[in-house]
Amino acid sequence: MTDEFEEQHHYVVGHKQPDTDTVCSAIAYARLQQSSGRDARPVRAGELNPETRFVLEEFDVEEPELLEDAAGEDIVLVDHNVYSQAVDGMEDAEVHQIIDHHRLGDIETSEPIYVRIEPVGSTATIITDLYNEAGVEITPSVAGLLLSGLLSDTVVLRSPTTTDIDEEVAQELAATAGVDIEDYGKELLAKKSQLGEKSPREMVLGDFKEYDWGGQTIGIGQVETVEPETVLEQKDAVLDAMESIVDERGYPLLVLLVTDLLEEHTEAFVAGDAVDTFQSALDTAVEDSQASLPGVMSRKKQVVPPLEDAFSR
Amino acid sequence: MTDEFEEQHHYVVGHKQPDTDTVCSAIAYARLQQSSGRDARPVRAGELNPETRFVLEEFDVEEPELLEDAAGEDIVLVDHNVYSQAVDGMEDAEVHQIIDHHRLGDIETSEPIYVRIEPVGSTATIITDLYNEAGVEITPSVAGLLLSGLLSDTVVLRSPTTTDIDEEVAQELAATAGVDIEDYGKELLAKKSQLGEKSPREMVLGDFKEYDWGGQTIGIGQVETVEPETVLEQKDAVLDAMESIVDERGYPLLVLLVTDLLEEHTEAFVAGDAVDTFQSALDTAVEDSQASLPGVMSRKKQVVPPLEDAFSR
Repeated sequence: MTDEFEEQHHYVVGHKQPDTDTVCSAIAYARLQQSSGRDARPVRAGELNPETRFVLEEFDVEEPELLEDAAGEDIVLVDHNVYSQAVDGMEDAEVHQIIDHHRLGDIETSEPIYVRIEPVGSTATIITDLYNEAGVEITPSVAGLLLSGLLSDTVVLRSPTTTDIDEEVAQELAATAGVDIEDYGKELLAKKSQLGEKSPREMVLGDFKEYDWGGQTIGIGQVETVEPETVLEQKDAVLDAMESIVDERGYPLLVLLVTDLLEEHTEAFVAGDAVDTFQSALDTAVEDSQASLPGVMSRKKQVVPPLEDAFSR
Repeated sequence: MTDEFEEQHHYVVGHKQPDTDTVCSAIAYARLQQSSGRDARPVRAGELNPETRFVLEEFDVEEPELLEDAAGEDIVLVDHNVYSQAVDGMEDAEVHQIIDHHRLGDIETSEPIYVRIEPVGSTATIITDLYNEAGVEITPSVAGLLLSGLLSDTVVLRSPTTTDIDEEVAQELAATAGVDIEDYGKELLAKKSQLGEKSPREMVLGDFKEYDWGGQTIGIGQVETVEPETVLEQKDAVLDAMESIVDERGYPLLVLLVTDLLEEHTEAFVAGDAVDTFQSALDTAVEDSQASLPGVMSRKKQVVPPLEDAFSR
């Protein structure tokens, strides 16, 4: 029954505000599909960030084309499974497969499809397993892409989302790609933190996700950096930008997580009327629109679940 | 991050109106989890049908206990991933894993979990793969259970949902269980068709599923039998029962599929106000509350998708 799909031209695509894991997973999974004769093409759901551009240059891989509208297309989703983070028109696309490491979201299908979601640190980890299960050799270039996605999403294996499987897969990929995990990881982190040239608004909306909870839409941005001062020193300007966004979009809550990758600590800027909900959900005190979240590195695992609980109540 | 779950006592459970695939998959998957030291217990979501009771006796396996309310429990779902087919209280349960072969449904989680959905003929097929991936030996008794689930859901590999993978897995399981697929399959089909003692209402609601489409709830029952006459001869009484159910529950459409397993043909009884929608969606003519659906064997694959399209429009 999969024969029909195998002959169809289809796109492999990650989430909006693409990061390194989403882009590299799309490229690597499209190649795995191609290796079994499928007409799969990797595409991106938005502008690439400097880290991802660095990775593609490093491993000599072409930037995927932009997919602006998914309506009517045949799609494989990687690294997301909710409509709010998908390319526009996804509600009217035919989703054939989902490979992801996030919570189970709101995408439904009318036919049985292939879904593989695992609670590991990156989608690249799962894609590596899928290569191994299929007995398909991972080239040094694809290993480099997958390792970059894995190290980027797990903050070089330091994030609390990191599992034993991620550690093992990282070793395997580093050996194939011929790079040292710590050395290369530091290079990656440095690219991730190039914030100098960004406007306050770009800092908030650069790596940004919306969540629909209890009939309301909440926005949470995150800056992961080895130089948190770059953002914290511009607090007034960043809060002005956040207030404007709250006015434009009517969020009850807008949060910017400024995550110090080396200290494993997050300072949060908080705007909107629901500051109290944030305080009690995260068990912290917001003073002067700012709160400390010691040990917090992961938006998905440490910030989203308590906020979702609070807003869905 | 899975350590916490590994130590927790949890239930492995299939869908309401349990069939052989859902019950045998729950038992076999709980045993796989137990083999890696997890505290997993198989349970059932309702009364077992005669076919499933025959299978458990045949392979000398105890009937799982009934789970009446899932609220507050730690749960692994097999063979379904929509709330409407789950044990009551599932909205307030902690769902940790989903293993299924149906369309992607409406269950969402707040944390990443393990989800494995594949477009194959039975959940038992996927569970067999999971044993093989984990390198855990399948005992003859578990092989018998899994083979029974596979053969029951695929109508002894005759249903259009059957894939090459199902064929291969069936061969493997039959060898381990020491049974002949065709001989044992005929025995199973005969048990499935023991309709003699059922009331018309029991025929409609025996293997019955509700679907929520476009704000309306539609009911579709199915009788799979090698003796369709047993049902067709009681047409008036069955239609009376269907009209009563429509009155009680307010369905715009209630369908009973009477599927002839040997002829690969379905006769449908149709009640409710939305008969026209049924006619155009299934491209058939309803005369005297009855329609012919040649070649139709699968509710899930051949009846649900066109009806969902029509009602969601």
